[in-house]
Amino acid sequence: MVRRMTKHYGCATEFTLHLLGGKWKTIILCYLKEGPWRYGELRSFMPRLSDKVLTERLKELETSALIERTGGGSADAVRYRLTARGEALRSVLTAIYQWGDKHAAAYGVEVDNPLRGRKRKTG
Amino acid sequence: MVRRMTKHYGCATEFTLHLLGGKWKTIILCYLKEGPWRYGELRSFMPRLSDKVLTERLKELETSALIERTGGGSADAVRYRLTARGEALRSVLTAIYQWGDKHAAAYGVEVDNPLRGRKRKTG
Repeated sequence: MVRRMTKHYGCATEFTLHLLGGKWKTIILCYLKEGPWRYGELRSFMPRLSDKVLTERLKELETSALIERTGGGSADAVRYRLTARGEALRSVLTAIYQWGDKHAAAYGVEVDNPLRGRKRKTG
Repeated sequence: MVRRMTKHYGCATEFTLHLLGGKWKTIILCYLKEGPWRYGELRSFMPRLSDKVLTERLKELETSALIERTGGGSADAVRYRLTARGEALRSVLTAIYQWGDKHAAAYGVEVDNPLRGRKRKTG
C-alpha cells in the first residue's frame, strides 16, 4: 500500500524530498542500501535515535513502499530491506553519503562510520 | 566563511543532510544547478515560498559556502550561483530530481517543472 499524499508538487525534487521526509528516513535508507538488517542492528547504528522515532520512521518507509519486512516466525528472523522502489533510490543515497564523506574535513567536522569493520552474516 | 556547526556526526549521510537542512534549500540548489538566477527568478520558481523564507535559506546556503552572489552594481545584476562545493553536490541534486521525475506517476502524484520551456539569457 502506498501512503496517501499530496497530489501535486512544485517540482520533482520536492516530491522526492517529501517521501524522504527529513533526516532519519534518509539515514535509515542509507543503511538498508548496504543490505537487510534486524531492528536491533539498525538501532545500534543510530544510538541517538529513540525506539519510538525509529519505529515510526520504519513504518512510514514501509507505507511509502520504500522498505519491507522480510522473514517471519520468530521476531529475531525479521529483517528490513529495500523494496525495488527503495533500490531505485540507491544513486541518491550513495551520492549523499559520498559528498558528506568527501567534504566533512573541509568543514572541520568528523563523521563516524558505524558499518566500518562490520561483517555481515551471509544467508 | 563556513557556517559554524556541530563537529561530530553519526555518519557521512547525516552531515550532508545537516548542510542541506530541509526541503527548500535542496530545491533552491536544484534550480541553481541549472545555472545562475536572479532573486526574482528563484522567487518565481517557488511561488509557495515566502520572501522571508527564501531570503533566509539563500543566506544559510551562502554561509555554508554552497552558493555565492555574483555581479554587483545594480541589484538587478546580482545572481546566485553554486560555488565549487555546491557544484560537487550536482550528482546528489540530479539523482533526487530524477528519482522524483521517474516515480511520481507510480505514486499517483503530479509534479510541475517550472523550468520547462524556459530560455536562459546567455551572458
